[in-house]
Amino acid sequence: MSGWVVIAGLGPGDDALVTPEARTAIDAATDIVGYIPYVRRIAPRDGLTLHESDNRVEIDRANHALEMARNGHRVVVVSSGDPGVFAMAAAVFEALEAGPAEWRNLDIRVLPGITAMLAAAARAGAPLGHDFCAINLSDNLKPWALIEKRLRLAAEADFAMAFYNPRSKSRPEGFGRALDVLKEVCEPGRLIIFARAVSTADEALRVVPLAEATPEMADMRTVVLVGSSQTRLIERDSAPIVYTPRSVAV
Amino acid sequence: MSGWVVIAGLGPGDDALVTPEARTAIDAATDIVGYIPYVRRIAPRDGLTLHESDNRVEIDRANHALEMARNGHRVVVVSSGDPGVFAMAAAVFEALEAGPAEWRNLDIRVLPGITAMLAAAARAGAPLGHDFCAINLSDNLKPWALIEKRLRLAAEADFAMAFYNPRSKSRPEGFGRALDVLKEVCEPGRLIIFARAVSTADEALRVVPLAEATPEMADMRTVVLVGSSQTRLIERDSAPIVYTPRSVAV
Repeated sequence: MSGWVVIAGLGPGDDALVTPEARTAIDAATDIVGYIPYVRRIAPRDGLTLHESDNRVEIDRANHALEMARNGHRVVVVSSGDPGVFAMAAAVFEALEAGPAEWRNLDIRVLPGITAMLAAAARAGAPLGHDFCAINLSDNLKPWALIEKRLRLAAEADFAMAFYNPRSKSRPEGFGRALDVLKEVCEPGRLIIFARAVSTADEALRVVPLAEATPEMADMRTVVLVGSSQTRLIERDSAPIVYTPRSVAV
Repeated sequence: MSGWVVIAGLGPGDDALVTPEARTAIDAATDIVGYIPYVRRIAPRDGLTLHESDNRVEIDRANHALEMARNGHRVVVVSSGDPGVFAMAAAVFEALEAGPAEWRNLDIRVLPGITAMLAAAARAGAPLGHDFCAINLSDNLKPWALIEKRLRLAAEADFAMAFYNPRSKSRPEGFGRALDVLKEVCEPGRLIIFARAVSTADEALRVVPLAEATPEMADMRTVVLVGSSQTRLIERDSAPIVYTPRSVAV
Protein backbone atom coordinates (compact mmCIF):
# COMPACT_ATOMS: atom_id res chain seq x y z
CA MET A 1 0.00 0.00 0.00
CA SER A 2 1.41 3.44 -0.83
CA GLY A 3 1.87 5.93 1.92
CA TRP A 4 0.88 9.57 2.09
CA VAL A 5 1.15 12.62 4.29
CA VAL A 6 -1.82 14.88 4.97
CA ILE A 7 -1.27 18.06 6.96
CA ALA A 8 -4.69 18.81 8.41
CA GLY A 9 -6.12 21.70 10.41
CA LEU A 10 -8.39 20.78 13.32
CA GLY A 11 -9.76 24.31 13.77
CA PRO A 12 -9.59 26.25 17.04
CA GLY A 13 -10.93 23.56 19.39
CA ASP A 14 -14.60 22.68 18.89
CA ASP A 15 -15.09 19.44 16.94
CA ALA A 16 -18.02 21.13 15.14
CA LEU A 17 -15.35 23.22 13.38
CA VAL A 18 -13.40 20.24 12.00
CA THR A 19 -14.16 19.90 8.28
CA PRO A 20 -15.54 16.60 6.95
CA GLU A 21 -12.48 16.51 4.66
CA ALA A 22 -10.10 16.49 7.65
CA ARG A 23 -12.26 13.91 9.42
CA THR A 24 -12.11 11.59 6.39
CA ALA A 25 -8.31 11.80 6.32
CA ILE A 26 -8.05 11.02 10.04
CA ASP A 27 -10.36 8.03 9.57
CA ALA A 28 -8.08 6.67 6.81
CA ALA A 29 -4.81 7.27 8.67
CA THR A 30 -2.45 4.71 10.21
CA ASP A 31 -0.49 7.38 12.12
CA ILE A 32 -1.23 10.76 13.67
CA VAL A 33 1.69 13.09 14.34
CA GLY A 34 1.59 16.41 16.20
CA TYR A 35 1.99 18.60 19.23
CA ILE A 36 0.63 16.85 22.35
CA PRO A 37 -2.65 18.78 22.89
CA TYR A 38 -3.63 18.47 19.21
CA VAL A 39 -2.96 14.72 19.01
CA ARG A 40 -5.08 14.29 22.16
CA ARG A 41 -8.05 15.61 20.18
CA ILE A 42 -7.96 12.42 18.05
CA ALA A 43 -9.93 9.42 19.30
CA PRO A 44 -7.77 6.29 19.65
CA ARG A 45 -8.79 3.24 17.58
CA ASP A 46 -7.30 -0.07 16.46
CA GLY A 47 -4.81 0.35 13.65
CA LEU A 48 -4.06 3.99 14.49
CA THR A 49 -0.82 4.99 16.21
CA LEU A 50 -0.76 8.38 17.95
CA HIS A 51 2.67 10.08 18.01
CA GLU A 52 2.70 13.01 20.41
CA SER A 53 5.62 15.42 20.44
CA ASP A 54 6.49 18.57 22.32
CA ASN A 55 6.47 22.13 21.07
CA ARG A 56 9.53 23.43 19.16
CA VAL A 57 10.41 20.09 17.55
CA GLU A 58 8.47 20.83 14.37
CA ILE A 59 11.25 19.76 11.97
CA ASP A 60 11.87 16.45 13.80
CA ARG A 61 8.15 15.78 13.68
CA ALA A 62 7.99 16.63 9.97
CA ASN A 63 10.95 14.33 9.21
CA HIS A 64 9.26 11.54 11.14
CA ALA A 65 6.00 11.98 9.22
CA LEU A 66 7.73 12.04 5.81
CA GLU A 67 9.84 8.99 6.60
CA MET A 68 6.82 7.00 7.79
CA ALA A 69 4.97 7.90 4.57
CA ARG A 70 7.91 6.69 2.50
CA ASN A 71 7.58 3.41 4.35
CA GLY A 72 3.94 3.07 3.35
CA HIS A 73 2.19 4.67 6.32
CA ARG A 74 -0.80 6.94 5.91
CA VAL A 75 0.16 9.86 8.09
CA VAL A 76 -1.90 12.84 9.24
CA VAL A 77 0.08 15.70 10.73
CA VAL A 78 -2.39 17.60 12.89
CA SER A 79 -2.30 21.34 13.56
CA SER A 80 -4.81 23.47 15.39
CA GLY A 81 -6.50 26.10 13.25
CA ASP A 82 -5.31 26.07 9.65
CA PRO A 83 -2.04 24.20 9.01
CA GLY A 84 -0.85 26.89 6.60
CA VAL A 85 -1.09 29.78 9.09
CA PHE A 86 1.83 29.76 11.56
CA ALA A 87 1.52 26.00 11.86
CA MET A 88 2.88 22.70 10.56
CA ALA A 89 2.57 22.98 6.76
CA ALA A 90 5.60 25.26 6.29
CA ALA A 91 7.64 23.06 8.66
CA VAL A 92 6.84 19.94 6.61
CA PHE A 93 7.90 21.66 3.38
CA GLU A 94 11.12 22.92 5.00
CA ALA A 95 11.88 19.31 5.98
CA LEU A 96 10.89 18.06 2.53
CA GLU A 97 13.19 20.51 0.76
CA ALA A 98 16.14 19.64 3.02
CA GLY A 99 15.48 15.90 3.03
CA PRO A 100 16.25 12.96 0.72
CA ALA A 101 15.24 13.26 -2.93
CA GLU A 102 12.83 10.30 -2.62
CA TRP A 103 10.54 12.38 -0.40
CA ARG A 104 9.79 14.87 -3.19
CA ASN A 105 7.34 12.67 -4.99
CA LEU A 106 5.42 11.49 -1.98
CA ASP A 107 1.67 12.09 -2.01
CA ILE A 108 1.45 15.19 0.22
CA ARG A 109 -1.67 17.25 0.71
CA VAL A 110 -2.58 20.18 2.94
CA LEU A 111 -6.19 20.34 4.18
CA PRO A 112 -7.32 23.81 5.26
CA GLY A 113 -8.96 24.48 8.61
CA ILE A 114 -10.66 27.26 10.54
CA THR A 115 -7.79 29.47 11.65
CA ALA A 116 -7.89 31.17 15.06
CA MET A 117 -8.23 34.74 13.78
CA LEU A 118 -11.34 33.90 11.74
CA ALA A 119 -12.96 32.00 14.61
CA ALA A 120 -12.20 34.96 16.90
CA ALA A 121 -13.45 37.49 14.35
CA ALA A 122 -16.71 35.56 13.96
CA ARG A 123 -17.30 35.67 17.71
CA ALA A 124 -16.69 39.42 17.85
CA GLY A 125 -18.71 40.32 14.73
CA ALA A 126 -16.71 41.12 11.60
CA PRO A 127 -13.58 43.06 12.63
CA LEU A 128 -11.65 41.63 9.64
CA GLY A 129 -14.43 42.60 7.21
CA HIS A 130 -12.08 44.84 5.24
CA ASP A 131 -8.39 44.52 4.24
CA PHE A 132 -6.29 43.00 7.03
CA CYS A 133 -2.99 41.36 7.90
CA ALA A 134 -1.85 38.49 10.12
CA ILE A 135 1.41 38.79 12.08
CA ASN A 136 3.09 36.21 14.30
CA LEU A 137 4.42 38.23 17.26
CA SER A 138 6.88 35.54 18.32
CA ASP A 139 10.49 36.54 17.71
CA ASN A 140 11.74 32.97 18.06
CA LEU A 141 12.18 32.69 14.28
CA LYS A 142 12.58 36.30 13.13
CA PRO A 143 14.18 39.46 14.49
CA TRP A 144 12.03 41.76 16.63
CA ALA A 145 12.99 44.68 14.37
CA LEU A 146 11.09 43.04 11.50
CA ILE A 147 7.99 42.61 13.66
CA GLU A 148 8.12 46.27 14.65
CA LYS A 149 8.62 47.37 11.04
CA ARG A 150 5.60 45.32 9.96
CA LEU A 151 3.44 46.77 12.74
CA ARG A 152 4.29 50.33 11.69
CA LEU A 153 3.68 49.67 7.99
CA ALA A 154 0.44 47.78 8.70
CA ALA A 155 -0.81 50.73 10.75
CA GLU A 156 0.18 53.14 7.98
CA ALA A 157 -1.71 50.95 5.47
CA ASP A 158 -4.69 51.07 7.88
CA PHE A 159 -5.07 47.29 7.84
CA ALA A 160 -7.05 45.57 10.55
CA MET A 161 -4.55 43.19 12.17
CA ALA A 162 -4.53 39.76 13.77
CA PHE A 163 -1.69 38.81 16.11
CA TYR A 164 -0.83 35.16 16.65
CA ASN A 165 1.36 34.08 19.59
CA PRO A 166 1.22 37.50 21.21
CA ARG A 167 2.80 36.46 24.48
CA SER A 168 4.32 33.42 26.18
CA LYS A 169 6.22 32.71 29.38
CA SER A 170 9.50 32.66 27.46
CA ARG A 171 8.66 35.94 25.68
CA PRO A 172 6.92 38.09 28.31
CA GLU A 173 8.09 41.45 26.90
CA GLY A 174 7.26 41.46 23.19
CA PHE A 175 3.55 42.08 23.35
CA GLY A 176 4.03 45.12 25.57
CA ARG A 177 6.44 46.51 22.98
CA ALA A 178 3.89 45.81 20.23
CA LEU A 179 1.22 47.70 22.18
CA ASP A 180 3.66 50.60 22.66
CA VAL A 181 4.19 50.78 18.89
CA LEU A 182 0.43 50.78 18.27
CA LYS A 183 -0.13 53.48 20.92
CA GLU A 184 2.45 55.62 19.15
CA VAL A 185 0.89 55.34 15.68
CA CYS A 186 -2.87 54.73 16.22
CA GLU A 187 -5.54 56.83 17.94
CA PRO A 188 -6.34 55.88 21.59
CA GLY A 189 -9.87 54.74 20.75
CA ARG A 190 -8.66 52.07 18.27
CA LEU A 191 -10.61 48.88 19.08
CA ILE A 192 -8.66 45.87 20.34
CA ILE A 193 -10.17 42.40 20.79
CA PHE A 194 -8.55 39.83 23.07
CA ALA A 195 -9.99 36.46 22.08
CA ARG A 196 -8.88 33.60 24.30
CA ALA A 197 -9.41 29.89 23.56
CA VAL A 198 -12.27 30.53 21.14
CA SER A 199 -14.71 27.62 20.74
CA THR A 200 -13.43 25.84 23.87
CA ALA A 201 -14.80 25.74 27.43
CA ASP A 202 -12.27 28.42 28.37
CA GLU A 203 -13.43 30.91 25.74
CA ALA A 204 -13.27 34.57 26.81
CA LEU A 205 -13.63 37.70 24.69
CA ARG A 206 -12.75 41.22 25.76
CA VAL A 207 -13.03 44.41 23.70
CA VAL A 208 -11.13 47.51 24.85
CA PRO A 209 -9.92 50.75 23.32
CA LEU A 210 -6.18 50.77 22.63
CA ALA A 211 -5.56 53.24 25.48
CA GLU A 212 -6.82 50.64 27.97
CA ALA A 213 -5.07 47.59 26.47
CA THR A 214 -2.37 46.07 28.70
CA PRO A 215 0.08 43.20 28.10
CA GLU A 216 -1.53 40.93 30.72
CA MET A 217 -4.74 40.81 28.69
CA ALA A 218 -3.02 38.30 26.34
CA ASP A 219 -1.46 34.91 26.97
CA MET A 220 -0.35 32.06 24.73
CA ARG A 221 -3.95 30.96 24.09
CA THR A 222 -5.03 34.44 22.95
CA VAL A 223 -5.41 35.84 19.46
CA VAL A 224 -5.43 39.64 19.42
CA LEU A 225 -7.39 41.50 16.75
CA VAL A 226 -6.76 45.19 16.12
CA GLY A 227 -9.37 47.19 14.23
CA SER A 228 -8.54 49.58 11.41
CA SER A 229 -9.35 53.28 11.82
CA GLN A 230 -12.80 52.46 10.34
CA THR A 231 -13.75 49.67 12.77
CA ARG A 232 -16.99 50.29 14.69
CA LEU A 233 -18.62 49.08 17.90
CA ILE A 234 -22.36 48.38 18.15
CA GLU A 235 -23.53 48.43 21.78
CA ARG A 236 -26.24 45.96 22.77
CA ASP A 237 -27.74 44.51 25.94
CA SER A 238 -25.51 41.45 25.38
CA ALA A 239 -21.90 41.45 24.15
CA PRO A 240 -21.13 44.33 21.78
CA ILE A 241 -20.50 43.71 18.08
CA VAL A 242 -17.25 44.89 16.49
CA TYR A 243 -17.14 45.20 12.72
CA THR A 244 -15.19 46.88 9.95
CA PRO A 245 -17.43 48.28 7.19
CA ARG A 246 -16.87 47.18 3.61
CA SER A 247 -16.60 50.75 2.34
CA VAL A 248 -13.97 53.43 2.75
CA ALA A 249 -15.13 56.87 1.64
CA VAL A 250 -13.00 58.72 -0.90
CA MET B 1 -40.67 30.74 18.70
CA SER B 2 -37.86 33.28 18.77
CA GLY B 3 -36.01 34.06 15.59
CA TRP B 4 -32.34 34.30 14.92
CA VAL B 5 -29.84 35.18 12.22
CA VAL B 6 -26.78 33.07 11.53
CA ILE B 7 -24.24 34.30 8.98
CA ALA B 8 -22.52 31.14 7.82
CA GLY B 9 -19.58 30.44 5.55
CA LEU B 10 -19.95 27.54 3.13
CA GLY B 11 -16.25 27.36 2.26
CA PRO B 12 -14.89 27.60 -1.28
CA GLY B 13 -17.18 25.06 -2.97
CA ASP B 14 -16.66 21.45 -1.92
CA ASP B 15 -19.25 20.26 0.61
CA ALA B 16 -16.44 18.41 2.43
CA LEU B 17 -15.23 21.88 3.48
CA VAL B 18 -18.53 22.92 5.10
CA THR B 19 -18.14 22.74 8.89
CA PRO B 20 -20.55 20.60 10.92
CA GLU B 21 -21.45 23.79 12.82
CA ALA B 22 -22.66 25.49 9.61
CA ARG B 23 -24.49 22.32 8.56
CA THR B 24 -26.34 22.20 11.91
CA ALA B 25 -27.49 25.82 11.49
CA ILE B 26 -28.73 25.15 7.96
CA ASP B 27 -30.64 22.09 9.18
CA ALA B 28 -32.38 24.23 11.85
CA ALA B 29 -33.21 27.15 9.55
CA THR B 30 -36.59 28.22 8.19
CA ASP B 31 -35.04 30.61 5.65
CA ILE B 32 -31.82 30.78 3.64
CA VAL B 33 -30.78 34.14 2.23
CA GLY B 34 -27.89 34.84 -0.12
CA TYR B 35 -26.36 35.42 -3.51
CA ILE B 36 -27.86 33.06 -6.11
CA PRO B 37 -24.97 30.56 -6.56
CA TYR B 38 -24.47 30.18 -2.80
CA VAL B 39 -28.17 29.59 -2.06
CA ARG B 40 -28.18 26.95 -4.81
CA ARG B 41 -25.68 24.96 -2.75
CA ILE B 42 -28.41 24.35 -0.13
CA ALA B 43 -30.65 21.30 -0.62
CA PRO B 44 -34.37 22.20 -0.69
CA ARG B 45 -36.58 20.61 1.97
CA ASP B 46 -40.05 21.08 3.45
CA GLY B 47 -40.21 24.00 5.84
CA LEU B 48 -37.20 25.76 4.31
CA THR B 49 -37.62 28.82 2.09
CA LEU B 50 -34.71 29.69 -0.21
CA HIS B 51 -34.35 33.44 -0.96
CA GLU B 52 -31.92 34.02 -3.81
CA SER B 53 -30.73 37.53 -4.59
CA ASP B 54 -28.33 39.08 -7.05
CA ASN B 55 -24.87 40.43 -6.43
CA ARG B 56 -24.51 44.04 -5.16
CA VAL B 57 -27.73 44.02 -3.11
CA GLU B 58 -26.00 43.01 0.11
CA ILE B 59 -27.69 45.62 2.31
CA ASP B 60 -31.19 44.80 1.01
CA ARG B 61 -30.47 41.13 1.67
CA ALA B 62 -29.22 41.91 5.18
CA ASN B 63 -32.30 44.01 5.97
CA HIS B 64 -34.51 41.19 4.75
CA ALA B 65 -32.73 38.63 6.94
CA LEU B 66 -32.89 40.83 10.06
CA GLU B 67 -36.56 41.65 9.56
CA MET B 68 -37.47 37.98 9.08
CA ALA B 69 -35.60 37.10 12.30
CA ARG B 70 -37.52 39.80 14.17
CA ASN B 71 -40.67 38.08 12.95
CA GLY B 72 -39.57 34.77 14.42
CA HIS B 73 -37.81 33.18 11.45
CA ARG B 74 -34.59 31.22 11.84
CA VAL B 75 -32.49 32.71 9.08
CA VAL B 76 -29.15 31.59 7.70
CA VAL B 77 -27.36 34.13 5.52
CA VAL B 78 -24.98 32.11 3.38
CA SER B 79 -21.61 33.32 2.08
CA SER B 80 -18.99 31.39 0.25
CA GLY B 81 -15.69 31.06 2.08
CA ASP B 82 -15.70 32.77 5.47
CA PRO B 83 -18.51 35.28 6.02
CA GLY B 84 -16.16 37.70 7.79
CA VAL B 85 -13.68 38.00 4.89
CA PHE B 86 -15.02 40.28 2.14
CA ALA B 87 -18.45 38.69 2.51
CA MET B 88 -21.84 39.09 4.18
CA ALA B 89 -21.02 39.54 7.90
CA ALA B 90 -19.93 43.19 7.61
CA ALA B 91 -22.97 43.93 5.42
CA VAL B 92 -25.34 42.50 8.04
CA PHE B 93 -23.74 44.61 10.77
CA GLU B 94 -23.90 47.74 8.60
CA ALA B 95 -27.63 47.08 8.16
CA LEU B 96 -28.02 46.33 11.87
CA GLU B 97 -26.37 49.58 12.92
CA ALA B 98 -28.48 51.64 10.51
CA GLY B 99 -31.73 49.78 11.22
CA PRO B 100 -34.46 49.91 13.88
CA ALA B 101 -33.37 49.69 17.54
CA GLU B 102 -35.30 46.41 18.00
CA TRP B 103 -32.84 44.61 15.72
CA ARG B 104 -29.93 45.21 18.12
CA ASN B 105 -30.89 42.53 20.56
CA LEU B 106 -31.67 39.83 18.03
CA ASP B 107 -29.78 36.55 18.41
CA ILE B 108 -27.09 37.02 15.73
CA ARG B 109 -24.12 34.71 15.27
CA VAL B 110 -21.35 34.47 12.71
CA LEU B 111 -20.06 30.97 11.88
CA PRO B 112 -16.58 30.90 10.38
CA GLY B 113 -15.78 29.04 7.16
CA ILE B 114 -12.81 28.06 5.03
CA THR B 115 -11.91 31.26 3.23
CA ALA B 116 -10.69 31.14 -0.38
CA MET B 117 -7.11 32.25 0.30
CA LEU B 118 -6.54 29.43 2.81
CA ALA B 119 -8.07 26.80 0.51
CA ALA B 120 -5.86 28.11 -2.31
CA ALA B 121 -2.78 28.23 -0.10
CA ALA B 122 -3.37 24.63 0.99
CA ARG B 123 -3.50 23.48 -2.63
CA ALA B 124 -0.24 25.28 -3.47
CA GLY B 125 1.67 24.23 -0.34
CA ALA B 126 2.07 26.88 2.36
CA PRO B 127 2.64 30.24 0.65
CA LEU B 128 0.99 32.07 3.58
CA GLY B 129 3.15 30.23 6.13
CA HIS B 130 4.64 33.48 7.41
CA ASP B 131 3.14 36.97 8.01
CA PHE B 132 0.68 37.94 5.29
CA CYS B 133 -2.13 40.29 4.32
CA ALA B 134 -5.45 40.03 2.50
CA ILE B 135 -6.56 42.81 0.15
CA ASN B 136 -9.81 43.14 -1.78
CA LEU B 137 -8.77 44.53 -5.17
CA SER B 138 -12.26 45.74 -6.04
CA ASP B 139 -12.52 49.53 -6.04
CA ASN B 140 -16.33 49.45 -5.94
CA LEU B 141 -16.29 50.40 -2.25
CA LYS B 142 -12.96 52.15 -1.79
CA PRO B 143 -10.75 54.46 -3.82
CA TRP B 144 -8.12 52.89 -6.05
CA ALA B 145 -5.47 55.15 -4.45
CA LEU B 146 -5.99 53.32 -1.13
CA ILE B 147 -5.53 49.93 -2.81
CA GLU B 148 -2.31 51.08 -4.42
CA LYS B 149 -1.05 52.55 -1.13
CA ARG B 150 -1.73 49.25 0.63
CA LEU B 151 0.05 47.24 -2.10
CA ARG B 152 3.17 49.39 -1.77
CA LEU B 153 3.21 49.24 2.04
CA ALA B 154 2.52 45.49 2.05
CA ALA B 155 5.47 44.95 -0.32
CA GLU B 156 7.68 47.15 1.88
CA ALA B 157 6.62 45.09 4.91
CA ASP B 158 7.48 41.96 2.89
CA PHE B 159 4.13 40.36 3.62
CA ALA B 160 2.91 37.50 1.49
CA MET B 161 -0.38 38.73 0.01
CA ALA B 162 -3.76 37.34 -0.97
CA PHE B 163 -5.92 39.27 -3.43
CA TYR B 164 -9.68 38.76 -3.44
CA ASN B 165 -11.82 39.93 -6.38
CA PRO B 166 -8.78 40.66 -8.53
CA ARG B 167 -10.68 41.21 -11.75
CA SER B 168 -14.24 41.31 -13.08
CA LYS B 169 -15.96 42.30 -16.29
CA SER B 170 -16.93 45.65 -14.80
CA ARG B 171 -13.38 46.29 -13.54
CA PRO B 172 -11.08 44.92 -16.26
CA GLU B 173 -8.21 47.38 -15.58
CA GLY B 174 -7.49 47.25 -11.84
CA PHE B 175 -5.60 43.98 -11.67
CA GLY B 176 -3.22 45.06 -14.42
CA ARG B 177 -2.48 48.20 -12.41
CA ALA B 178 -1.88 46.07 -9.30
CA LEU B 179 0.57 43.89 -11.22
CA ASP B 180 2.34 47.04 -12.47
CA VAL B 181 2.78 48.23 -8.87
CA LEU B 182 4.18 44.85 -7.83
CA LYS B 183 6.55 44.78 -10.81
CA GLU B 184 7.84 48.18 -9.75
CA VAL B 185 8.55 47.23 -6.12
CA CYS B 186 9.26 43.46 -6.10
CA GLU B 187 11.94 41.37 -7.82
CA PRO B 188 10.91 39.70 -11.14
CA GLY B 189 11.19 36.20 -9.69
CA ARG B 190 8.60 36.84 -6.96
CA LEU B 191 6.22 33.84 -7.00
CA ILE B 192 2.59 34.44 -7.95
CA ILE B 193 -0.14 31.80 -7.64
CA PHE B 194 -3.37 32.07 -9.61
CA ALA B 195 -5.88 29.78 -7.90
CA ARG B 196 -9.18 29.48 -9.72
CA ALA B 197 -12.34 27.88 -8.30
CA VAL B 198 -10.45 25.86 -5.71
CA SER B 199 -12.24 22.67 -4.56
CA THR B 200 -14.71 22.75 -7.46
CA ALA B 201 -14.74 20.83 -10.75
CA ASP B 202 -13.27 23.93 -12.44
CA GLU B 203 -10.23 24.12 -10.16
CA ALA B 204 -7.02 25.31 -11.81
CA LEU B 205 -3.74 26.38 -10.23
CA ARG B 206 -0.93 28.19 -11.98
CA VAL B 207 2.38 29.33 -10.48
CA VAL B 208 4.46 31.93 -12.33
CA PRO B 209 7.22 34.38 -11.54
CA LEU B 210 5.98 37.99 -11.31
CA ALA B 211 7.72 38.89 -14.58
CA GLU B 212 5.46 36.43 -16.43
CA ALA B 213 2.19 37.31 -14.66
CA THR B 214 -0.43 38.92 -16.89
CA PRO B 215 -3.88 40.33 -16.11
CA GLU B 216 -5.74 37.64 -18.11
CA MET B 217 -4.48 34.96 -15.71
CA ALA B 218 -7.14 36.13 -13.19
CA ASP B 219 -10.91 36.35 -13.41
CA MET B 220 -13.69 36.81 -10.87
CA ARG B 221 -13.35 33.20 -9.62
CA THR B 222 -9.60 33.55 -8.99
CA VAL B 223 -7.76 34.26 -5.75
CA VAL B 224 -4.23 35.52 -6.35
CA LEU B 225 -1.48 34.76 -3.84
CA VAL B 226 1.79 36.67 -3.93
CA GLY B 227 4.79 35.26 -2.11
CA SER B 228 7.05 37.30 0.15
CA SER B 229 10.74 37.72 -0.77
CA GLN B 230 11.37 34.50 1.20
CA THR B 231 8.83 32.27 -0.59
CA ARG B 232 10.31 29.17 -2.20
CA LEU B 233 9.41 26.70 -4.93
CA ILE B 234 10.04 22.95 -4.64
CA GLU B 235 10.07 21.26 -8.05
CA ARG B 236 8.63 17.75 -8.28
CA ASP B 237 7.43 15.35 -10.97
CA SER B 238 3.88 16.48 -10.15
CA ALA B 239 2.76 20.06 -9.38
CA PRO B 240 5.42 22.14 -7.63
CA ILE B 241 5.06 23.14 -3.98
CA VAL B 242 5.20 26.81 -3.01
CA TYR B 243 5.87 27.65 0.62
CA THR B 244 7.08 30.48 2.81
CA PRO B 245 9.50 29.34 5.53
CA ARG B 246 8.70 30.10 9.16
CA SER B 247 12.07 31.76 9.78
CA VAL B 248 13.57 35.01 8.60
CA ALA B 249 17.31 35.27 9.23
CA VAL B 250 18.59 38.28 11.16
